[in-house]
Amino acid sequence: MTRWRLTIEFDGGPFMGWQRQDHGPSVQQALEEAIHRMTGELIAVHAAGRTDAGVHALAMAAHVDIAKSLTEHRLREGINALVRPNPISVTAVQPVDDNWHARFSCIGRKYLYRILNRRAPPALDLGRVWHIAVPLDVEAMAEGAAMLVGRHDFTTFRSVNCQSDSPVKTLDRLDVKRVGEEIHIEAAARSFLHHQVRSMVGCLALVGRNQWQPNDIGRALEARDRAELGLNAPPEGLYFVEAAYP
Amino acid sequence: MTRWRLTIEFDGGPFMGWQRQDHGPSVQQALEEAIHRMTGELIAVHAAGRTDAGVHALAMAAHVDIAKSLTEHRLREGINALVRPNPISVTAVQPVDDNWHARFSCIGRKYLYRILNRRAPPALDLGRVWHIAVPLDVEAMAEGAAMLVGRHDFTTFRSVNCQSDSPVKTLDRLDVKRVGEEIHIEAAARSFLHHQVRSMVGCLALVGRNQWQPNDIGRALEARDRAELGLNAPPEGLYFVEAAYP
Repeated sequence: MTRWRLTIEFDGGPFMGWQRQDHGPSVQQALEEAIHRMTGELIAVHAAGRTDAGVHALAMAAHVDIAKSLTEHRLREGINALVRPNPISVTAVQPVDDNWHARFSCIGRKYLYRILNRRAPPALDLGRVWHIAVPLDVEAMAEGAAMLVGRHDFTTFRSVNCQSDSPVKTLDRLDVKRVGEEIHIEAAARSFLHHQVRSMVGCLALVGRNQWQPNDIGRALEARDRAELGLNAPPEGLYFVEAAYP
Repeated sequence: MTRWRLTIEFDGGPFMGWQRQDHGPSVQQALEEAIHRMTGELIAVHAAGRTDAGVHALAMAAHVDIAKSLTEHRLREGINALVRPNPISVTAVQPVDDNWHARFSCIGRKYLYRILNRRAPPALDLGRVWHIAVPLDVEAMAEGAAMLVGRHDFTTFRSVNCQSDSPVKTLDRLDVKRVGEEIHIEAAARSFLHHQVRSMVGCLALVGRNQWQPNDIGRALEARDRAELGLNAPPEGLYFVEAAYP
């Protein structure tokens, strides 16, 4: 039995999210079926994070235990061949210790949120960005974002379905910058609450539109009340970028 | 009657190409039908270049004559609303002189070709890049590309269906560079022959794989014989980037 670490890129568009669901396709199911067809083994693939329907990944980390003896090359090429036509690609594999766990060993997660900020809707990036047609005030958004960095009770920015034991998290970084026609919001933390990044981005968009002032972000945070949430950003602009391990 | 210049972004994936075809959807037809529904006028949209099936555009230039009185805002928003769900977006419109012609007034065209050069196939950029799994020698490709720059008879790099009067063209620029996991090839000329960029890129890929030496590019050029063509690159990596006007 070998425990393998997988690095996975996927387009979240056609999926109900990472996790297996009864009512539609998932990234987890597509990968597990590909590995089953290759090895004959019924295995579970565990990921660093459970992404929502429509959320993408540039480099999701995951692990899987496989009894069959395989080289790195055969495992990666085999999954990539058998997972087609799903838009999922294993970009790297490596054997790891049996106590390495994609979710529990992870000490840092990074997300990117892409807003396309121009009049015209996206053509090439349809389903890959949140389109906001009115010009956003990036400086005000950055000022609001700074109020969220640090250790806080993020109840306001947490889905009612969140299964985390505590709403207290430490947000290491929340950077807002203009990149051509886009605004990129980068978030880094040890872990995030369910919908936390999309909730923070939604409120920052209200600040960018001058519907909220930067201080309203602090007010919403201090309220510790989901009803204070301004707006949950749509999933298609969100990318799981990186999982860090000791 | 006003002549309008349009700047258009599109995903070429679902189309038979720019030009109207009997056997499938085209970018031209989708735009003409959107404008027809908005104005009631049966009009023709003329583009700077006719892209092949699967080829994308970041900023195609085109023009159209419309009798109905419209503001820039209404024309752009109207087309973008009515052209849905086609992955086409008009990013800019402006009124131009009646003698301005998207194709005949154009004095420079730029294309970008994207090769994804890594073992794993694309997930997020499926249909947007040419995937080549073996590592390419970018320096050798750049050396080969330099032999194509200048005024030459490009018969070797021309489709048998090309309707240009002469195979002689002046290639102003053909740059090859590595950008992360991708190789970008940028081509600039007043005009190109049919399939010229894809034919040049296909031969450069052979050089990158060491199946051809850089000098074989010069040999193929001098042969002026389509049978000397090594490889035509697939359409999905090609982007029409820019049309220049006096």
